[in-house]
Formats: sequence, structure tokens, C-alpha cells
Amino acid sequence: MKITVLGVGGMGSRFALMLHQGGNDVTLVDGWQANIDAIRKDGIQANFNGKPVSAKMPIYSPAEIDQSGVKADLIVVFLKSNQLDAMFKRVQPIIHKDTYVLCLLNGIGHEDVLSKYVAKDHLLLGITMWTAGMTGPGHVELSGDGEVELENFEPAGEAFAKQVVSVFEGAGLNPKYSHDVKYSIWRKACVNGTLNCLCALLDCNIGEFGKTKQAPELLHTIIDEFAAVADKEGVNLDTEEVYNHVAATFTSDIAGHYPSMHQDLVQNHRLTEIEFIDGAVARKGEQYGIATPYCKLLTQMVHVKEQLVGAK
Amino acid sequence: MKITVLGVGGMGSRFALMLHQGGNDVTLVDGWQANIDAIRKDGIQANFNGKPVSAKMPIYSPAEIDQSGVKADLIVVFLKSNQLDAMFKRVQPIIHKDTYVLCLLNGIGHEDVLSKYVAKDHLLLGITMWTAGMTGPGHVELSGDGEVELENFEPAGEAFAKQVVSVFEGAGLNPKYSHDVKYSIWRKACVNGTLNCLCALLDCNIGEFGKTKQAPELLHTIIDEFAAVADKEGVNLDTEEVYNHVAATFTSDIAGHYPSMHQDLVQNHRLTEIEFIDGAVARKGEQYGIATPYCKLLTQMVHVKEQLVGAK
Repeated sequence: MKITVLGVGGMGSRFALMLHQGGNDVTLVDGWQANIDAIRKDGIQANFNGKPVSAKMPIYSPAEIDQSGVKADLIVVFLKSNQLDAMFKRVQPIIHKDTYVLCLLNGIGHEDVLSKYVAKDHLLLGITMWTAGMTGPGHVELSGDGEVELENFEPAGEAFAKQVVSVFEGAGLNPKYSHDVKYSIWRKACVNGTLNCLCALLDCNIGEFGKTKQAPELLHTIIDEFAAVADKEGVNLDTEEVYNHVAATFTSDIAGHYPSMHQDLVQNHRLTEIEFIDGAVARKGEQYGIATPYCKLLTQMVHVKEQLVGAK
Repeated sequence: MKITVLGVGGMGSRFALMLHQGGNDVTLVDGWQANIDAIRKDGIQANFNGKPVSAKMPIYSPAEIDQSGVKADLIVVFLKSNQLDAMFKRVQPIIHKDTYVLCLLNGIGHEDVLSKYVAKDHLLLGITMWTAGMTGPGHVELSGDGEVELENFEPAGEAFAKQVVSVFEGAGLNPKYSHDVKYSIWRKACVNGTLNCLCALLDCNIGEFGKTKQAPELLHTIIDEFAAVADKEGVNLDTEEVYNHVAATFTSDIAGHYPSMHQDLVQNHRLTEIEFIDGAVARKGEQYGIATPYCKLLTQMVHVKEQLVGAK
């Protein structure tokens, strides 16, 4: 399959590398020049479960796309949520009428952005449990196991979605064709919608937050807001199961982990993806006439903090 | 007038000193032994608008109260809100049937605690705009001007309240007999209920917070919750006037100030008074069946932060 990976950070590098190793024709598009230069010179260089692995693939900046002639069957998106719109505007030449786009980003409402650039029946959505870390331009740390769950956004995309599952299977990505990926996306958004903003605002890791007396009630209230909005989108979350799923992290091997929003906001003073998590729930809640005050206040506070730290 | 000042921190020292200079018989009660020792030895030592002033007054710890024979016409309370209950339990011997108690603390619901120890018709409530800073045991910085507004909690206390106004007048404390002190208390609580917890949680000063895009909406939403609960207590807040009153601080000479809750939580890792501000509104809101989600979430987050920093 001719695949373009759009956004070659940690996760994009992992998917590019594994799909390339799986025999696919992989092209990269990225917006960070130092990363482009490094990959162009030496390929993606990974510490892959303890072993050094590298692989060369063509890589382009958005500015070079016009001349590249890149034409993919599938574009896999690994951008930051808040870069999605601007980046898709710039890479429109690589999207043809038979190009499918798979979005595996955390968060809610990416289909609203993507459907401005891709027909809905060419849209695939999913989640992934793979992890990856970038250590510098062109360099990534890839360890542990993961999986992918994906589904076509509209019925017409089913055949192609199943082809993608088969291609991912061949690349060792442990994919699963989902019969309700929207449920999985909302369920995963509940993890990010609770732990990400709370740990970022309170400056703590997951385990530290989980030990506080207020953690259970905070989780329940926020998850209830997510569930009320999800319900309006045809997703009927099992809030008790979701609560247990989130609370399980408190004593898991990721308890010592600072969620990505903590890394963005507190550690690196970067703009966060809050508008695609709690912010999306607050916005949709307003549209549906559902009160989501916790999501709204958390979103406002994260935005205040972004301004206070001069996030860019 | 025989006056006992209960709690001899910055503000207690100011009132004690000024009332003593005004010719009253002032006794002190405090719980901090180093402070007691210093005042017993050298009196209260103040930098009073640039001039060194000191004054000796008898001072007792709660443990010494029984033997002290202290009997006051008026007890003026300058404890931390969260110490109120425990301290009053310990100092019961100084409260006689004709003792009045004046509470000038920030926050809501102190009368609920105090009325466990003092008859309601012997309770006076108020607010003060005086400021004071403690620089060490027995040492305080007192500068600038201020005023006091007070009223009897029940009609029967009016005559005594007016006597107190007259005594405070003689001490230069700029008192005013209020005809609606509950309104003033709620109005002042709106300042603390917005700026205190937000600046503490977001780790910023008043002016920094005021410059962020979300500040106006955050203020409005929180003040609306305070107003809805105040309304149930017979106080009809003018929310627009209160909003302007709070927002005026953003560009005032206190813009560079970190509110007391920031000092408690972030700087000194002490337990906060949130239960007497936003926490009181959330609790009362629950009793009255009024939604106060912002007050509740802010209270929960402050409590989480107290645990994270090991506040005591």
C-alpha cells in the first residue's frame, strides 16, 4: 500500500518504520525542518526495543509537497490536534479523490476538521495504544507493545478499512477492525479529559493525583459530563466501566507518568490540545444544551495557564 | 472597653495596638508560643507607618486561659478561618454571658461556627480594609489606611455594636456602623472567591491573571454562583457592580499582589481557607439546591493541591 505518514514525531516515526518494514511504500511529510534534514540524511533512527534500527524513506515539508508528486492510498495522521487544520490546508495537493485518511489522534471532533479536506466516506478513525518518544530530530525511542483499533467513518469505507487492518497486521501493529470505534474514542478521551488537564493544572503525575481524596469524585463528575455529550452523539458510555478504566491508571505502571498535557504546558510551555478534549465536550455541550461546567472551567484554566507561561 | 484580641498575627496586632493606644484595656490570646514569648518580653513591636512603636499588653496561650481570669466586654477575632472552631473550643472560659464577639474575618459562614460558642444576639460581624504584615514573632509592619464596617448579627446587639463603633472611632480605626453588613461580607467574599483560588491554582498574581482572555468570563461565572446562594440568604448582590469591583483590582496598586491563598498554598504549603469561601458557597448551594459547579471544582482542586504539597 502507498502510505503517507503526516507528522513524523515519535508515533509517526513508529508507524512509518513498522509499515516500511512491513513492505509498504511509505512517504513522510513533516513540518519541522531539523527533523526533515535529519531523516533525509540518515533516515529514521530508532532504538527499537533495545536494538538500533534505521530506515530511509522520502520526506517532504508542506512547502515541497506540490513538486513531490506524492500520491498515497492512505494518509495516516500523527499531528498535534491543534495543528490539524493548518497542516491539512497546506498539504491539500496530496489528497486525491481516492485517498483515504486515517486519524489515530487522541481527542474528540477531529472528523469535523478532517471532513473539510476529505470526503467522509474516505475517512477512517481509530485509536492506538502504541507509545513512542522522540529524543531528537530523526531519533526515536520505541519500546513495548501496543495495538490499533480502527473503523471507517461511513459504511462505504468498510472495505478499505479492512484492507488497512490487513496491511497493519502485516506490519506487526496489532490492528483490530472495530465495530464501534466512536465508543473507543470517547472512552479514551475520558482518560485524557480527566488526567491530562488535572495533572497539568495541579502539576503532578497520575499516581500522585490518584492518591488524593478528591480524585474519585472529580473523575466521576468529569466522566458524567463526557457521557452526557457522547450520548447526544449516539455513544452510550458505560460510566462505571470508564471510571474503573481511568482509576486503574492510579496504581498501574504509568502511575509515575506525567500526561502529555503536563509535558506541553508545564515542562515545555507549549499550547495544549485541550480544545479537542474537555474543550470539545464543553463546546458540544453548549450546542446540545447540556451543562458541562467542569469541562468548561478546566478548559478555561488551561487556556489561562497557556497565557501565563507564554505557550506557543 | 475591656477588649480581648484573639489571634495576634498581623491584623490582630494592628487592632490590639491601635485599641490600646486609644485607651482601652486590651488583652491578647494567641496560639503560637514564639509569638507569645516575644510579646511578653518586648510587647508588640510595630513599624507603624515608618515609625517604630511598641506596646506591652498581657498575653495568654489557650492553655493559660483558665488561670488568667480574663473577662472581656468584647472579643475581636483574627484567627485563620480554619482555626476558628478549634480555638473557640479551647478559649471558652473567656466567653461570659455578657461577652460580645466581633468577627472581621474574610469569608462566609463564620456565624455558623461562632454561634456554637456565643449567643447570636452577642455576635457582631464585619469586614475590614486595613492591612498588616507579620515579619516575625512579635513584629509587624503596619502601613497605609483602612476602615472597618460592622453590624450586630441580631437586632438586640445594636446598642453594643454602636458602642464598639465609638470605641473604634477613638482608636482611629475608621469604623462605620453598617446597615447591611451581610451584603458587604458577601461582596468581599466575591473578591476572595475569585482571585484567591484562581491565583493560587494558576500560580500567578492578580494583575497577571487579570490580563488573560478568560478572566472576565471566569469572574462573571463565579460571582453569579455566589450571588445565587447569597440570594437564598437574603442578600441580593448587584453582580455587575461586584464584577467591576473585583476587576478593578487587575489594574490597581494591588495588581502585583499574590493573594493570601497563594501565600498559604504555593509559598508556605499551609492549609487554605477555601472551605469558608468557595467551599462555603458550594456547600450552601447544595443545601439550597443551587448548582455551584465552579465553586465546587475550585474547592476540590485547592484541596487536591493541599495534599500534593503536604499542607498542614
